[in-house]
Amino acid sequence: MRLDAAAVRRPNASDASPALTNVKAERVRAVAALGRRSARERRGLFVAEGPQAVREAVACRPGDVREIFADSDGQGRHHEILRAARDAGIAVRATSGEVLAAMCSTTTPQGLLAVCRRVDVPLDSILAGTPRLLVVLTSVRDPGNAGTVIRGADAAGADAVIIGSASVDLYNPKVVRSAVGSHFHLPIAVRVDIPALLTRLGELSIATYATDGSGPRTVYEVDLSAPHAWVMGNEAWGMPESVLSACDEVVGVPLYGRAESLNLAMAATVCLFASARALHGPRAG
Amino acid sequence: MRLDAAAVRRPNASDASPALTNVKAERVRAVAALGRRSARERRGLFVAEGPQAVREAVACRPGDVREIFADSDGQGRHHEILRAARDAGIAVRATSGEVLAAMCSTTTPQGLLAVCRRVDVPLDSILAGTPRLLVVLTSVRDPGNAGTVIRGADAAGADAVIIGSASVDLYNPKVVRSAVGSHFHLPIAVRVDIPALLTRLGELSIATYATDGSGPRTVYEVDLSAPHAWVMGNEAWGMPESVLSACDEVVGVPLYGRAESLNLAMAATVCLFASARALHGPRAG
Repeated sequence: MRLDAAAVRRPNASDASPALTNVKAERVRAVAALGRRSARERRGLFVAEGPQAVREAVACRPGDVREIFADSDGQGRHHEILRAARDAGIAVRATSGEVLAAMCSTTTPQGLLAVCRRVDVPLDSILAGTPRLLVVLTSVRDPGNAGTVIRGADAAGADAVIIGSASVDLYNPKVVRSAVGSHFHLPIAVRVDIPALLTRLGELSIATYATDGSGPRTVYEVDLSAPHAWVMGNEAWGMPESVLSACDEVVGVPLYGRAESLNLAMAATVCLFASARALHGPRAG
Repeated sequence: MRLDAAAVRRPNASDASPALTNVKAERVRAVAALGRRSARERRGLFVAEGPQAVREAVACRPGDVREIFADSDGQGRHHEILRAARDAGIAVRATSGEVLAAMCSTTTPQGLLAVCRRVDVPLDSILAGTPRLLVVLTSVRDPGNAGTVIRGADAAGADAVIIGSASVDLYNPKVVRSAVGSHFHLPIAVRVDIPALLTRLGELSIATYATDGSGPRTVYEVDLSAPHAWVMGNEAWGMPESVLSACDEVVGVPLYGRAESLNLAMAATVCLFASARALHGPRAG
């Protein structure tokens, strides 16, 4: 769709052509269908909703943005994003608010969505880049937690995120929303076999630290200045014993007060920022 | 209700008396009404939903638990919590699953809820305790974020949480759920006038650090071993200029990668754990 001849000849076509207003139109239903994993996998596409995610998609991965849909609210409030999209040759299609809502999984798409090609990369390309800080998600089922951890990995300057086959889909709309554009910022591998990964990380001398409340040493007692991977599991059930025992060490986040635990995203934030500080110092850049 | 004579004489009364099954019963509607702030304030009560929050209420503030309701699932799975409640003289009332759901604001109360007296304390009692680590929430509107910050403050061993008058209600069911029992763990003051508070903290030589992306120094460059308060604002709008300028310093969380920001709960987690490490060292206790 993005590179159809009309769009290339007339980058402002959307402004001239009538807005999509029929919620039952085939192309509206085709976008809405991307709320389902099966449709995403068959078509190799996913939806980024809201101005922040769309802006990052356009800025960082314009070649992977197939089409943008904007209602009058989105067109009125997000001129710069839409101009950048058109400058990059991305088709922008006007819709009614009702059509945009019908395409979305969120209740508040804030006027914009982008249909994107999947952005995950092969594990080999990540490991070939001599990474110093990796995040491994194994059996993470909650999409909000997964997306927030991806956002935190991005903020902490992690080299990549690696997601195991038992975890939530990277392109689940709630994961995309919680990650607020980070899908387009750092390499992410999916459907990775975790036991095989842990073996390979060992061969590459990348230390593997499983986060768990029961670790004998805390995140502040481990040397984080050498290459390492944080291995995070499901909040409620923890990690399978086989994964825990395959990691070099189980590392805890100290709980100084009376709270019994942290949620996964908070524990990940503590670990990732301890790593960032050790690797990069007290300031970014 | 809790101390009625029958309950005192027969701590297992609930097991003998018939389960509450009428969703339209006055006492069911009275609990459900606590989902509304006006009813909570008029009656001085709130609802803690789910086994973790109920367990912490019973363990830490048994005198403030008015009554516990449990459906057959909750009775079957949470013997220990219910035994502790009865041992503390708290009335436990059996309900149908339908009644428990009608009382709750969450979709999954997991079998248990407690009606509790409000637990906030006067600001003066917090400041009289020579606190070393405080969290101040000003204009925080998102209940999930507020609850998660309270949980994080608890985990980091903060001495108290202070909530300004423009923030979400401490007893909003989503705040209580996200805090997972921390309401019962550390002192919390509410409806506090923030400008007056900042003046008082200055008089007490407690440094006030506003968290904001734009701070000249980062959280890792400030001396956190002396008494201080983290002042956190609304994620989307930041803090009012008047609050920012009244704090001793605006302190940033360094963003090492390409993410544009952290959400409030993540930023709070980074700041609080940096404080905990500086105040308490790399291990808890």
